[in-house]
Amino acid sequence: MSDTREQILEQIKVQGDLVRQLKAAKESKEKIDEQVARLLALKATLGGDAAPTNQKFTLKTPKGTRDYGPQQMTLRQGVLDKIVQVFKRHGGEAIDTPVFELKEVLTGKYGEDSKLIYDLKDQGGEILSMRYDLTVPLARYLAMNKISSIKRYHIAKVYRRDNPAMTKGRYREFYQCDFDIAGTYDPMLPDAECVKIVSEILDTLDIGDYVIKLNHRQLLDGMFQACGVPADSFRTICSAVDKLDKSPWADVRKEMVEEKGLDEAAADRIGEYVRLSGGAELVEQLLVDEKLKAVPNAVKGLEGMKLLLKYCSIFGLDKRVSFDLSLARGLDYYTGVIYEGVLKGESATVASPAKTSQQNGEQTNEPATVGSVAGGGRYDNLVGMFDPRGKAVPCVGVSIGVERIFSVLEARAAASGLKLRTSDVEVYVASAHKGLHEARLKVLNLLWDAGVKAEHSYKLNPKLLVQLQHCEEHQIPLVVVLGDAELAQGLVKLREVTTRAETNVKLEDLAAEIRRRQQSA
Amino acid sequence: MSDTREQILEQIKVQGDLVRQLKAAKESKEKIDEQVARLLALKATLGGDAAPTNQKFTLKTPKGTRDYGPQQMTLRQGVLDKIVQVFKRHGGEAIDTPVFELKEVLTGKYGEDSKLIYDLKDQGGEILSMRYDLTVPLARYLAMNKISSIKRYHIAKVYRRDNPAMTKGRYREFYQCDFDIAGTYDPMLPDAECVKIVSEILDTLDIGDYVIKLNHRQLLDGMFQACGVPADSFRTICSAVDKLDKSPWADVRKEMVEEKGLDEAAADRIGEYVRLSGGAELVEQLLVDEKLKAVPNAVKGLEGMKLLLKYCSIFGLDKRVSFDLSLARGLDYYTGVIYEGVLKGESATVASPAKTSQQNGEQTNEPATVGSVAGGGRYDNLVGMFDPRGKAVPCVGVSIGVERIFSVLEARAAASGLKLRTSDVEVYVASAHKGLHEARLKVLNLLWDAGVKAEHSYKLNPKLLVQLQHCEEHQIPLVVVLGDAELAQGLVKLREVTTRAETNVKLEDLAAEIRRRQQSA
Repeated sequence: MSDTREQILEQIKVQGDLVRQLKAAKESKEKIDEQVARLLALKATLGGDAAPTNQKFTLKTPKGTRDYGPQQMTLRQGVLDKIVQVFKRHGGEAIDTPVFELKEVLTGKYGEDSKLIYDLKDQGGEILSMRYDLTVPLARYLAMNKISSIKRYHIAKVYRRDNPAMTKGRYREFYQCDFDIAGTYDPMLPDAECVKIVSEILDTLDIGDYVIKLNHRQLLDGMFQACGVPADSFRTICSAVDKLDKSPWADVRKEMVEEKGLDEAAADRIGEYVRLSGGAELVEQLLVDEKLKAVPNAVKGLEGMKLLLKYCSIFGLDKRVSFDLSLARGLDYYTGVIYEGVLKGESATVASPAKTSQQNGEQTNEPATVGSVAGGGRYDNLVGMFDPRGKAVPCVGVSIGVERIFSVLEARAAASGLKLRTSDVEVYVASAHKGLHEARLKVLNLLWDAGVKAEHSYKLNPKLLVQLQHCEEHQIPLVVVLGDAELAQGLVKLREVTTRAETNVKLEDLAAEIRRRQQSA
Repeated sequence: MSDTREQILEQIKVQGDLVRQLKAAKESKEKIDEQVARLLALKATLGGDAAPTNQKFTLKTPKGTRDYGPQQMTLRQGVLDKIVQVFKRHGGEAIDTPVFELKEVLTGKYGEDSKLIYDLKDQGGEILSMRYDLTVPLARYLAMNKISSIKRYHIAKVYRRDNPAMTKGRYREFYQCDFDIAGTYDPMLPDAECVKIVSEILDTLDIGDYVIKLNHRQLLDGMFQACGVPADSFRTICSAVDKLDKSPWADVRKEMVEEKGLDEAAADRIGEYVRLSGGAELVEQLLVDEKLKAVPNAVKGLEGMKLLLKYCSIFGLDKRVSFDLSLARGLDYYTGVIYEGVLKGESATVASPAKTSQQNGEQTNEPATVGSVAGGGRYDNLVGMFDPRGKAVPCVGVSIGVERIFSVLEARAAASGLKLRTSDVEVYVASAHKGLHEARLKVLNLLWDAGVKAEHSYKLNPKLLVQLQHCEEHQIPLVVVLGDAELAQGLVKLREVTTRAETNVKLEDLAAEIRRRQQSA
């Protein structure tokens, strides 16, 4: 089937000559390298001493990325199917965009995170970057096609040159599952539905206890103003607050004061607010807060929170949501409500060691929580940034952090020792003795044409025991065993793998009989 | 909901100050550009005269790429689902690999096409390239994980800096759907199954008449040898033959002689062979051909073809396959059987103007065919190129050219004027009068929790007529109409959109009643 050693040696000779010719002709380095690589690759196929290992690079995927094998894919597909089901339940339509965008599309959208964008090499033509999220491409899509309202979902990979932490599900290439509602609507109606979607997804995935933290960018800005932060530092101080889920308050305060030059007293005032979390009663409390009620942005944010909490209550989410002033979200483009779905202690400890509450700093006495698995918010100005006339399309959306969810579920599956079936084969077609490969092909053809999922050994004369073992290993429920004696009477043996019960079935009834058994199984 | 004009003007002032500060502090160009971009973006949100258009780049996707809107996605998802069904019927397991690979993984695998690979910019760390196909990543995956047998499918985007021809479905970013069988098996058993898979897919997509052309790389090499082509020109002459599906023989001959320095007589001898196509009888004819029977490679190739045609016949494919000596396939890595599924004249003319038979050159009198929609073959040495010890894993596979298929089906859908439904919403929840938005949310929550796909207007007080029109436009079958009179009795009105028939239903029975209607629909 494969080339003989002699053929490969001949090819190596020919290829070696070619390389020598190119060198003699002083061809470009690129051209020569290409042919040298082929020469080395040919030598590699020989193996052994004749071909010293020429694989000069480690056989790996790029840093921060991974392959998905059949086990992971089965798990992943199951999760994605459930998420899509929820998106469709809320009327979502699917779109897709290219994996890269013109670099300018991404410029000025991600604040401090812009350094994490992957750029493509300038090979002549346009300058391109890999998408960093699915939100900016959506905004570009809406502006480009002058779409003023859509409810869309988008499931695709995004790219960030971040420091990977793969056991925790933090990769450089990772899936995002986004649902966004674009259009000019009445306050908080689409926003509350996004929160509902997060809760439906986390419920349906049965991933454990979680909380959906809620906050509002206008309230944050108003709070910063009330604390004496200069307006041009709002975004950078917001980025610092965003780190509170990973760092204690002391570290965040230090960053504010030492790196970002914030007044110590202002930092301390912020520290008072960001320790607060609660429900509708906290909104009422803050609406009468002396410092906040003087700032219009803060009041508007609080009024928004009040309405959001009311709608969440109608959606049965009172026990799931928490108004949390420490929630900031890293990205620049949010303009209103922001939220984050977070697994609580036990649900997330499967994947990574439990974090001690001390890591959350002395500023919080909540149970230690790890792992944001969903996040989003309102971004009313992003589409306008792409429209030549600045026409805004208000948007609100949510992104499900599926890699994190995969990590949790993979760890859980590994702990349980349960092996998922990775193929759907219903029937294996086996030979009882030699010389039956053509008969197998005939039976397979009959089954495939009837829509039955079937396979066989690709050996001419496999041993029956080996074939039966294959079925047990791969959890294939049925085997058709072919033998000359039965075939002569137009019959085949149908065997149930687990019970080993066998019946003779007429060849022309085989597909229907298998269908019948599948339905009653 | 969005920031007021005043707020934005304030933000612009702050941002302008920041830019000036950065410039004064002689910060890096990159840092300044980033902030300037944000300033311009802020100005853009104002629109009108105050903000002269600052969008300096055209709003577009990168050259050779496109967005998929909801209509295209619905069509695409339907096609991919059918393809996956066939892959699963043959026992395929799914895998996925990263969109980029270490550059060295791709080096030396694609011959003349290597120039079409997208490279990423060197941003420190590894040197990466975008995947060019799914076959080389599979080989890397198998070698890296020491997997010696698998039957896998992979559906993902690949990247080629080719000259795009988008109306014909030729893009720089496009989907491939690959099915490959890796493992050491008996001759032609997996190969014939791949051909069967192509035919099942083209049948299930109901895309029209097609032919699957078959050839063998060993036969081609043997034929080149018999015609007097020097061994080191086999691959480059093979690349020239590959162009026969697009160019007439005269052009291909010219390329062989003038560009590739082939002897004129040798070219003419090749010309005699590549006009041949047929079935088992052609194999027999060539097995007694004086020139070919003297070349061991040619005989081996012909013996392989004989066996393949026999198995294809058992699979009922006699009328679908054609042994065609002009089929060459561009890629270097094939070592045995090669095949290509091609739509015949009428099936493909929907997407692009009918090609005249003259375009196929005077060397063929077959009906004019356009558009390869599937292709593949055997590549026994590729995995060995990655294994440090050169351990080979023989492979055979097929790749479905779904973009081409989408183009044909999109053109057909456009011609029929049929609009696909792009969401699955079963029920729209409407208000008959003002003040009912909270009641709507309650009903929606009840429906969502029961798994019903439901949506509503995100306006507080939408007009009933507007709501009903929305349902007609979006082909939503049912509407729940809420009104105070009915709600007071615990009732809602359930209306069928097409017939306009209305019934009152108890709120607690609503979800069940909708389920009942869906099932009987």
